[in-house]
Amino acid sequence: MTSGQKRARQMFSSLAEATADPPGITRAAYGPGEQLAHNLAARHATELGCEISCDAIGNLYMTLPGEDRGAPAFFVGSHMDTVPHGGNFDGAAGVIAGLSLAATLVENNTVLPRDLVIMAIRAEEATWFPLSYLGSYAAFGKLPATAIDETVRSDTGRTLGWHMREAGFDPEPARQGKVLLPVRRVHSFVEVHIEQGPALIGGDQPIGLVTALNGGFRYTTARCIGRYAHSGATSRQYRQDAVLGFSDFVHGLEKEWDSLGEPGRDVTLTIGQVATDPTHHSGSKVAGEVGFCLDVRGPCQDALNGIRKRISALCDTVARTRGVDCVLGPEFTWPVTQLDEELRHQLNDAASTLNLSPPSMPSGAGHDAAVFAEMGIPTGMIFIRNANGSHNPDEDMDINDFDQAVSLLVAHYSLQASRS
Amino acid sequence: MTSGQKRARQMFSSLAEATADPPGITRAAYGPGEQLAHNLAARHATELGCEISCDAIGNLYMTLPGEDRGAPAFFVGSHMDTVPHGGNFDGAAGVIAGLSLAATLVENNTVLPRDLVIMAIRAEEATWFPLSYLGSYAAFGKLPATAIDETVRSDTGRTLGWHMREAGFDPEPARQGKVLLPVRRVHSFVEVHIEQGPALIGGDQPIGLVTALNGGFRYTTARCIGRYAHSGATSRQYRQDAVLGFSDFVHGLEKEWDSLGEPGRDVTLTIGQVATDPTHHSGSKVAGEVGFCLDVRGPCQDALNGIRKRISALCDTVARTRGVDCVLGPEFTWPVTQLDEELRHQLNDAASTLNLSPPSMPSGAGHDAAVFAEMGIPTGMIFIRNANGSHNPDEDMDINDFDQAVSLLVAHYSLQASRS
Repeated sequence: MTSGQKRARQMFSSLAEATADPPGITRAAYGPGEQLAHNLAARHATELGCEISCDAIGNLYMTLPGEDRGAPAFFVGSHMDTVPHGGNFDGAAGVIAGLSLAATLVENNTVLPRDLVIMAIRAEEATWFPLSYLGSYAAFGKLPATAIDETVRSDTGRTLGWHMREAGFDPEPARQGKVLLPVRRVHSFVEVHIEQGPALIGGDQPIGLVTALNGGFRYTTARCIGRYAHSGATSRQYRQDAVLGFSDFVHGLEKEWDSLGEPGRDVTLTIGQVATDPTHHSGSKVAGEVGFCLDVRGPCQDALNGIRKRISALCDTVARTRGVDCVLGPEFTWPVTQLDEELRHQLNDAASTLNLSPPSMPSGAGHDAAVFAEMGIPTGMIFIRNANGSHNPDEDMDINDFDQAVSLLVAHYSLQASRS
Repeated sequence: MTSGQKRARQMFSSLAEATADPPGITRAAYGPGEQLAHNLAARHATELGCEISCDAIGNLYMTLPGEDRGAPAFFVGSHMDTVPHGGNFDGAAGVIAGLSLAATLVENNTVLPRDLVIMAIRAEEATWFPLSYLGSYAAFGKLPATAIDETVRSDTGRTLGWHMREAGFDPEPARQGKVLLPVRRVHSFVEVHIEQGPALIGGDQPIGLVTALNGGFRYTTARCIGRYAHSGATSRQYRQDAVLGFSDFVHGLEKEWDSLGEPGRDVTLTIGQVATDPTHHSGSKVAGEVGFCLDVRGPCQDALNGIRKRISALCDTVARTRGVDCVLGPEFTWPVTQLDEELRHQLNDAASTLNLSPPSMPSGAGHDAAVFAEMGIPTGMIFIRNANGSHNPDEDMDINDFDQAVSLLVAHYSLQASRS
């Protein structure tokens, strides 16, 4: 076993132990679990001879010096936060892969032509703050102006700015849109991540190369609004039952989903959160309101725009037939993002030197890589085979598949070195 | 205006002011709002010359002495708690009607042949503790053995016993099933209550007489159990989406409801509470679990038994078609209760002396009167016309209709006095 492989196993096991939150793993964005993961990464990076730095909002940069210290650096990395009671690999695998790469380079006495920066990105999981790719956007000075003071963490109700300060960081530069990581510093970005669907398992492949990331939109504070009434004494025709309205909405969504069979135009429609209002509901009241979160994703922008219109029409139908208003509220959107084709070909060439033939595939989920691509940086992603999806405690990545992803990184950057 | 009418207006307005919780009124069972209502009633009763006593669990007895102090007493009363953000009249109107009756008797120097006991009953609204008629059952020593230590209040998570002690009462006799109010002490029980449906408004009648109370059953901790998964990366065929399973369950319920059109066999089906688990859900996760409360009520025990079976079959269907288990959990039931026919005829006779013709009608909602009837006590109920139903902030009882109910009580007990 190489020292990089040994180090990776140690890190995964330390992380799982320290951030266990049965059933599963919890590392809240700007919470103690995420900080612990950053500290662990920094300690290992220091042992490997990396330079450690941190930007104003807490993104961590671990730099293994290359020959030309002034040239744009190879960036690899991912995030270290998780959803509540998620798994150990979603996010962390990308940072640990970077450190395992660095360990192998150090062990082999390989010095790359340019710096290798392993980046641990803050706050990727939008479950904590209703923003996608918070840490990446902030690094490039692209966080929305209102994000610091107007978005609050789902479990604490406190603002992003409060949490940044509480964790010892400074939200001011991000509030002013200051660039923390200049684009010119980044030669390219590669994110290693577990696959969150079953395609690699189905195809019997340890790793895959991502072509594009799905776009999507989300309503985090949608509501069906009816009227509270006594359960036993209010007969059916007098009810404006928010639960029945919500259920009509869900069935209408499924019908729209049925109509979207065409490959490449498919979407996913997910209502991950539902709740009546605990300060007003009662088992003996007809529900007057149901709140919910609707998440829509797909590879085709045109199909996404179409389903958005049909969801809006569905709200009108529910209001007309049930007397229940469906109010979608603010919409958060993210575009479909193409990754760099040339970089994918380079990764493929490196894979062939290892006798691997990773399939090319789209990503259903969003990733920090989308922001790097949006900034014009050549960006690639390597998916690792993983059972049971992610965002749940049952994520199941085989560590040998992880080793293959690291071998691909080693082969890729060694080829880059030999070409320079 | 009689002194009783004046006093009733004062009490309603004091209560509304002191227990306002916009939008609406909140008087939690064993909370400060319920206690305030009891204190207010006791103060008015004292002014009227009533004897005040309280049983171990806090039911309040306000006794206007009659001629024969040892004879079984006329009981009138209701509860004073409300659902969260409910209205001012559901419950309190019955206690205030009793005090307004007492005020009129005192003003007219009428002494009844037996004591008149105005009873303010604790904790009727099952939204606080998952038990129906808690205070009445405890009075007769019929609270389930486990109720004190195993049922918790919905807003605090603390046990019934804890709340009783915190409010200064003693749960021990109720835990032991001791009788706090001997049945032999009660000659008859009349409960005045606002109608919670629209029948009296539709029939243009200020008051009505109740024939029977609907029975029903309730599952307070029902759950649809699927599997958490990533929203963007898990394609449709791999999902076990608890929200879709829940929605199927709701639509299946509605179909069952459609099939129950026959008059006298109808039921109401209400899901008043729904929630995904805030410690596990996320906008970017397929929901792995949805909890809900299902409340079923109807006038026909046979029809209730039938729908219970069909709900259970519906759970099997959802499990089979969605891979989502529907687990109903513990069931709380209460039977259909007939009220006393002779007492209803007496109330009707009294009404005719006032030129009123109150219609006879069933009650869709449950009431403490059911417990008195179950104990073999001759029991009647007077409904007062009320707009917008109850268990919501928009309850709208005309105080002149309330005065008619009090006039009926005065006429009824005066007739009883003249007969003795």
